[in-house]
Amino acid sequence: MKQTGFIYGGDYNPEQWLDTPEILKQDIEYMKAAHINEVTLGVFSWSALEPQEGVYEFKWLRNIIDNLYENGISVILSTPSGARPKWLADSYPEVLRVNADRTNNLFGGRHNHCYTSPVYREAIYKIDRKLSEQFGNHPAVTIWHISNELGGDCHCPLCQKAFRQWIEKKYGTIEALNKAWNTAFWSHTYPSFEQVESPSPRGEQELHGLNLDWKRFVTDQTADFVSWEKKAIWEGGSELPVTINMMYDYKGLNYHKFKDLIDFASWDSYPTWHKEEEKETALDTALQHDFMRSILKKPFLLMESCPTATNWQSVSKLKRPGMLGAASLQAVAHGADSVQYFQIRQSRGASEKFHGAVIDHYGGMDTRVFEEVTGVGSQLLELSEIAGSTVRARAAILHDCESRWAMEDSQGPRNKDLHYMDVLKKIFHGLRKLGLDVDILDMEEELKGYDLVFAPMLYMFRCDIETKIRNFVAKGGTFVMTYWSGIVNENDLCHLGGTPHQLMEVFGLRSTELDALYEGERNSGKSTGAFFEKEKRYECRNFCNLIRTDSAETLLSFETDFYEGYPAFARNSYEKGKAYYICADFEESFYDDLCLKLVEEKGLLKVPFDIPEGVAVTSRENPLKKFLFIQNFRKDKFLVNLRNTEWKLLMGDDTGVIGQYGTAVYWTVNQEERA
Amino acid sequence: MKQTGFIYGGDYNPEQWLDTPEILKQDIEYMKAAHINEVTLGVFSWSALEPQEGVYEFKWLRNIIDNLYENGISVILSTPSGARPKWLADSYPEVLRVNADRTNNLFGGRHNHCYTSPVYREAIYKIDRKLSEQFGNHPAVTIWHISNELGGDCHCPLCQKAFRQWIEKKYGTIEALNKAWNTAFWSHTYPSFEQVESPSPRGEQELHGLNLDWKRFVTDQTADFVSWEKKAIWEGGSELPVTINMMYDYKGLNYHKFKDLIDFASWDSYPTWHKEEEKETALDTALQHDFMRSILKKPFLLMESCPTATNWQSVSKLKRPGMLGAASLQAVAHGADSVQYFQIRQSRGASEKFHGAVIDHYGGMDTRVFEEVTGVGSQLLELSEIAGSTVRARAAILHDCESRWAMEDSQGPRNKDLHYMDVLKKIFHGLRKLGLDVDILDMEEELKGYDLVFAPMLYMFRCDIETKIRNFVAKGGTFVMTYWSGIVNENDLCHLGGTPHQLMEVFGLRSTELDALYEGERNSGKSTGAFFEKEKRYECRNFCNLIRTDSAETLLSFETDFYEGYPAFARNSYEKGKAYYICADFEESFYDDLCLKLVEEKGLLKVPFDIPEGVAVTSRENPLKKFLFIQNFRKDKFLVNLRNTEWKLLMGDDTGVIGQYGTAVYWTVNQEERA
Amino acid sequence: MKQTGFIYGGDYNPEQWLDTPEILKQDIEYMKAAHINEVTLGVFSWSALEPQEGVYEFKWLRNIIDNLYENGISVILSTPSGARPKWLADSYPEVLRVNADRTNNLFGGRHNHCYTSPVYREAIYKIDRKLSEQFGNHPAVTIWHISNELGGDCHCPLCQKAFRQWIEKKYGTIEALNKAWNTAFWSHTYPSFEQVESPSPRGEQELHGLNLDWKRFVTDQTADFVSWEKKAIWEGGSELPVTINMMYDYKGLNYHKFKDLIDFASWDSYPTWHKEEEKETALDTALQHDFMRSILKKPFLLMESCPTATNWQSVSKLKRPGMLGAASLQAVAHGADSVQYFQIRQSRGASEKFHGAVIDHYGGMDTRVFEEVTGVGSQLLELSEIAGSTVRARAAILHDCESRWAMEDSQGPRNKDLHYMDVLKKIFHGLRKLGLDVDILDMEEELKGYDLVFAPMLYMFRCDIETKIRNFVAKGGTFVMTYWSGIVNENDLCHLGGTPHQLMEVFGLRSTELDALYEGERNSGKSTGAFFEKEKRYECRNFCNLIRTDSAETLLSFETDFYEGYPAFARNSYEKGKAYYICADFEESFYDDLCLKLVEEKGLLKVPFDIPEGVAVTSRENPLKKFLFIQNFRKDKFLVNLRNTEWKLLMGDDTGVIGQYGTAVYWTVNQEERA
Ligand SMILES: [Zn+2]
Ligand SMILES: [Zn+2]
Ligand SMILES: [Zn+2]
Repeated sequence: MKQTGFIYGGDYNPEQWLDTPEILKQDIEYMKAAHINEVTLGVFSWSALEPQEGVYEFKWLRNIIDNLYENGISVILSTPSGARPKWLADSYPEVLRVNADRTNNLFGGRHNHCYTSPVYREAIYKIDRKLSEQFGNHPAVTIWHISNELGGDCHCPLCQKAFRQWIEKKYGTIEALNKAWNTAFWSHTYPSFEQVESPSPRGEQELHGLNLDWKRFVTDQTADFVSWEKKAIWEGGSELPVTINMMYDYKGLNYHKFKDLIDFASWDSYPTWHKEEEKETALDTALQHDFMRSILKKPFLLMESCPTATNWQSVSKLKRPGMLGAASLQAVAHGADSVQYFQIRQSRGASEKFHGAVIDHYGGMDTRVFEEVTGVGSQLLELSEIAGSTVRARAAILHDCESRWAMEDSQGPRNKDLHYMDVLKKIFHGLRKLGLDVDILDMEEELKGYDLVFAPMLYMFRCDIETKIRNFVAKGGTFVMTYWSGIVNENDLCHLGGTPHQLMEVFGLRSTELDALYEGERNSGKSTGAFFEKEKRYECRNFCNLIRTDSAETLLSFETDFYEGYPAFARNSYEKGKAYYICADFEESFYDDLCLKLVEEKGLLKVPFDIPEGVAVTSRENPLKKFLFIQNFRKDKFLVNLRNTEWKLLMGDDTGVIGQYGTAVYWTVNQEERA
Repeated sequence: MKQTGFIYGGDYNPEQWLDTPEILKQDIEYMKAAHINEVTLGVFSWSALEPQEGVYEFKWLRNIIDNLYENGISVILSTPSGARPKWLADSYPEVLRVNADRTNNLFGGRHNHCYTSPVYREAIYKIDRKLSEQFGNHPAVTIWHISNELGGDCHCPLCQKAFRQWIEKKYGTIEALNKAWNTAFWSHTYPSFEQVESPSPRGEQELHGLNLDWKRFVTDQTADFVSWEKKAIWEGGSELPVTINMMYDYKGLNYHKFKDLIDFASWDSYPTWHKEEEKETALDTALQHDFMRSILKKPFLLMESCPTATNWQSVSKLKRPGMLGAASLQAVAHGADSVQYFQIRQSRGASEKFHGAVIDHYGGMDTRVFEEVTGVGSQLLELSEIAGSTVRARAAILHDCESRWAMEDSQGPRNKDLHYMDVLKKIFHGLRKLGLDVDILDMEEELKGYDLVFAPMLYMFRCDIETKIRNFVAKGGTFVMTYWSGIVNENDLCHLGGTPHQLMEVFGLRSTELDALYEGERNSGKSTGAFFEKEKRYECRNFCNLIRTDSAETLLSFETDFYEGYPAFARNSYEKGKAYYICADFEESFYDDLCLKLVEEKGLLKVPFDIPEGVAVTSRENPLKKFLFIQNFRKDKFLVNLRNTEWKLLMGDDTGVIGQYGTAVYWTVNQEERA
Repeated sequence: MKQTGFIYGGDYNPEQWLDTPEILKQDIEYMKAAHINEVTLGVFSWSALEPQEGVYEFKWLRNIIDNLYENGISVILSTPSGARPKWLADSYPEVLRVNADRTNNLFGGRHNHCYTSPVYREAIYKIDRKLSEQFGNHPAVTIWHISNELGGDCHCPLCQKAFRQWIEKKYGTIEALNKAWNTAFWSHTYPSFEQVESPSPRGEQELHGLNLDWKRFVTDQTADFVSWEKKAIWEGGSELPVTINMMYDYKGLNYHKFKDLIDFASWDSYPTWHKEEEKETALDTALQHDFMRSILKKPFLLMESCPTATNWQSVSKLKRPGMLGAASLQAVAHGADSVQYFQIRQSRGASEKFHGAVIDHYGGMDTRVFEEVTGVGSQLLELSEIAGSTVRARAAILHDCESRWAMEDSQGPRNKDLHYMDVLKKIFHGLRKLGLDVDILDMEEELKGYDLVFAPMLYMFRCDIETKIRNFVAKGGTFVMTYWSGIVNENDLCHLGGTPHQLMEVFGLRSTELDALYEGERNSGKSTGAFFEKEKRYECRNFCNLIRTDSAETLLSFETDFYEGYPAFARNSYEKGKAYYICADFEESFYDDLCLKLVEEKGLLKVPFDIPEGVAVTSRENPLKKFLFIQNFRKDKFLVNLRNTEWKLLMGDDTGVIGQYGTAVYWTVNQEERA
């Protein structure tokens, strides 16, 4: 079933309604009324598909899929490994997880399986392969969705053994491991690989090298499990594309390590709309969309979102009229090729029974939510030609999962809170407010192709990022880095001889000390006039980095404390480019002003109007056309004037007025591609 | 030993003082001086009564009881199952509890026994029967007190097995259970009853049907344990009445399920007097008194209370002069036939050594507390004729333990806090401030006999409450219900087809959506003039229920948010009665105004004067007389004027002045009974 | 290696750097440049010294020590029991601890060994004896440092058995134990010693006698372990002095019980400078210095301190310029004979890699911290002659570890917070602000030799402190005691017959009730004019003790609540002395005024100038000279004028000016000693 345009649908659990066929029938009528063209099936269906070991029941699912197909609705089919049947856990307790405290789990919950267990792998292989054989070539089925929201870890003996093999493969000799983890500290030298155990609150917790390698192992083992499921699907005869559904700012896995395994990135987005001002929530969500899109740098899927209030937040608000449209189209504006909900029909019982759904317990179409869902369906039809187009960013931010793991695990200058994501967001917001599309990169990637790259708190240097940064600047790039960067190597061992490691020449300075500030404490940086306007001042908190400049020029200097007069912001020219070093956690306006100056300098401004706070400007393009999304997350309406420009209206009001939660889309010919 | 008048006494632990007979002798002198006529013995005496398995020592207890009897002091005798001897736990570890996380308890604490264990049941049977044989017909002994503050649960293999039998008996087939618990969700279908396990933080926690049935089982198993102890007592030859001492707002057990097992309700009351304003604490305590009285709808016992400061609160304040009297008589005003303390003599060591007592470590009678205790004793003598009289309420509030269990366990619109008890209290206070006596009903009871019934957040509908409410209104009753009512059935499965389930016609409306508000958020309802004065406004928070009215009339409408203008309070006339629906968590004054209007309409006002805040008016009656209690919990004195009315002074000041913490009691002939 | 003057150095871990000999060589050059004359070796070296069971590697350590010796640097040698090798834990799991919840630890962390295990004792005996044989007579080695920061407890079967032997030895019969612990409460009578188990959150937690004896046992068993290590050292042939490094306000051990085992007290001081105002931190640290010095009443060692920011605080601030000197000399001013750091060279990896060090990761001498360290080294050389001198205090405060254990474990009038240390600090500060040296005594010590003794909240009376206090007052001493004193005996059993136990005559009063106040509540005491100026008022909070005075005179009386007019502060003359009783938790100015009056009355004022807040005056003396330290912890400079007095300048500015963080030292001939 070849789809054109956007995928519109969501999770659907007919196995909960098999004894009410009239409801199943009605569901399809409702989907069609709402322009829904897809459902995701099978996410938690293992018990229904294999009610006893080796006894399969595919008929009900075939009926459902056939019916959907006949009604023009495609299927994303999920493997059922996100939860296992009771009989499997009872017959083979090894499939359940062992926690870090070495207690073993009982049956229950969702993410509760050992991804190493051969028994679990065998069981999942069988059901996945069967699913592939049964439905992998069904014309309705378009994509495989592997497991569900992968995460967590297992400390069972099987996983311990796998971890030991993993570290042996990595280090070769136990001496190399002892050196890399600096185990001489506290006399924790390992006599052999066989004696290494995973971190535990009952044992070793503060050996950062061990913690870090454990997290890497968990990611690798989880990825290996996904490979295994893919193998079962392939061997079942299906070659459809594959995705995994990822989560908001999830730190349990390094998602970048999955990029060779999936054909699409997809994620489940549940912003707390109406908690903060919408413009704040919109910026926060924009960052996640960009993070997910950057993994493969191509269109992603919005695999789950909620048509109205969720049921798991501390306070679950209704989505105000129009909010669903704004949130759905925001995903599209950032590169999504789908809008999908959890879920189509609300379940009657158990823990998500009050989670918002397209069809609620009342069960009628005459609901506010159903009308909004239908409206979004119409808009997606209007925008069909945009599906498949990409986002091309010229600015990027380095966010490296492994560096963050190490930094947040280390006991250092501010255990209370590093405010890492706050700084990253201030940079992201500074760029987004100017309408710039931004990629979020990890350290394994290349910097070429970007004009402007930021590195907030890049604590760890790995993958020879030193050379990449040096070359980037040497060739004319503008690179901005903050305090607490270049401190440790890939094993969290501190670099000797001065930091930022191997980049002191590029930045023209050396970091000497890092002062941490208490919650109420403030300092400020005052402009020397060399970059910002003379006398301009920016407040800072949390961190003040003392540096000794060499060739670098001081742009701001600290105003108080014993380091009054020391540089607080510095710039160095290095070959054809410029390297900026930020010494303190400055307020938002610093980043806004900095981004504006650098973006202007680089000529990256995109639209011929000032973008007020709360208005979001984003773009996608295909070889023929460029598309411009303008979304209004403010209370007041916004008037956009693109008359007498190249931009033509694709969706929105002719007058240029965009109301609260409204979206306008413009297009123009893609001159660059043509040239 | 036949007692007339009130029981006055409390817990007494002579087993801690057996080696100081002079103290035991002195205790009796002190009791008599304070007008104490009862002590509760044996609550934690098992080790002293059976120091080794099968070796009994009853002599010390007989001496104590004989002495008490000779001095005119009666005995409530407790079975010792609230704590077990060390030898029992060491010989038979199965008697100790297993926690939800499946760790087994060591010996220690109090409520730490498996109520299923045959060994524990056998051991308690023996000692209970012996106690009954030894003392069950002693003329001093008047009542059996079974165990102590029953509570908690056990997850041992014996309890798992009993639970599996319980669910099998309830559901018959595993298919019925799977349907009732909606186990298809997250693939948690049970293949057989044998595979069900109790909820655990290490396993299943979010299957609400399982959680709910586990709580029901725990209540049933605990009640069965009480039955077992009663059997031992009967078979030992005693037929005295039986009670269990219950606790403040305790949610671990559904106390209503014990009503066929006990002859009196009794409870342990420990308000934090002087923490809030006294009028607040008094209202809160009044609600608990009414809750306890409503279980059997006859006089209850105040089994424990503290003569001065407790030792387990975060800050333990002394009771101010007069407070003890006010608190003690408040229990009587709400229907208690006793005032009892924990404890008569303060223990020298262990965890309650600083808990206030009638006789403290100093050991003299010349203490402020002893004087207050003696004063209360005198007052109870003055009021003797009131003992045995009952409270007759014409207003009631539905508070159903099972509905509350389900509602508070569900993940829904406001996991942070539902404010359920706050709403119930606002209703209770609205009625109490008018001097109305109030019954607190669970859903198994009948509504007939009341004029006015409130149902705050009656999330679950069970016991065909739909029909009871419909009939109540049809026959002329006034029924008031709030948002979040009639949502689920008795297994916590959501009702399909619209809510409030089967009462949409009675209320003339359908609930469509429920918005939850963040902590600082507010909305308000503005009067249409159809009920409250035109332009009257009431603030609301936490919840706003969107409804579609049919025959109902809008009395208030929302003032802000996208549902501005929607109904916020509505009334429907249904046959001979009226049904009111409250859509939001309104402020206290809304409930005050509402109660006043409804009470006036129903002609339920009782006293011919305005009752200011902080003054409590309560009544009891017997076939001959009615009694009116007026208590002053304010700082200022209160002047009551009942001259030229039917009421005559029984206790208090002739001038009608009631000082701070003072109580006046009036009486009149019971015309209704005579008529 | 005979040392004169102060020890200056710190922890040094060359085993982390054995593969970089150039760094080890450079370290010695750096030490010499900074005037460092000592390093502490071996603290966590077990794995390096015995990499496999029975295989010893001492050569690397001999090379290090020889090199240090050749360069004039002495060694404090540590036994390695603070952490154990992996091979030991793997071969003999019994060496790891069992927690109170009866889970057994895995390998990891530091203080994770069973101090009872014969296997662990045997293993530590072997390595300690070898170390003693190898290095115990090396001329560089001067002191043994046993284990590291001893602490924690173990609940393994071996420890349970040892505990049972300990209680059997203490009580003789199980009846005596049952009586002492009041086990009849809650029916917890023990049939035999064999059935006693250590406290556990899974079992018994509220039997205060058990809890208290367990804490005593843990101290005794830990001390026994230290004895055992001393034995190994002696049997290895070394007779050097011994110390253990203690911790800030550590409540896990009663440090006074170690006084017969150690030759010096030493401790690890890590104040959070710059968090509060420096004067506050200085007072708090002064108390700990005095506490440590008071254990043996002779010079102690500052075994660890941080040259700049630590890495384990929630916010780790840099030490401001000069702070290191002020903090280091403060230890000396209070009686330290050393200034030592953790650590000399910063480790590259694991949990303390960001802890401040003399030589940081950068590795140059051109750092601010290295310059400060060098400066402190110079100052210590200037003050050399002071090393070895003592502090002679005439005022003392009773702080008894066992009383505090019992008081803080009991459930009593204010479980939220007793504010015990706050009261003790208010007294300490009142005395220190007058320049008085203060000893901190436990109840086992004698009171004679002091003029003025305070007892804040001396809940437990043991060691016949009643008689000591009575004699102290009878002979002319001034004794000041507060509420909540003399309540229980040494087993936490409440005294009967009135409190303060056996001192009602000395204080001329009896305590009747103790009221606890909520957080916001206040009362106040108003002066009767008999002691403080008439009309003077002091605010109080937390506690108000109601007393009945007999011969005592009321000095302050309560101003509000029902005890308005009751005594709030009273004085009694008893034979030649005076006994003061404080009824409430008064504000700081009360203690300041009280101390001033009592100190003047006793003629204890020491310096001829007023000491402003933030200036600290301290003294040491030897048979020939007295030394006066004046330290300025204020922002502003302080001018001291000692011209025309006996005092001569030893270190500091001729003008008498002491800048922020500055120290001046004066000396005079010790007339008293000569006389
Ligand atoms: Zn595993
Ligand atoms: Zn059980
Ligand atoms: Zn042990």
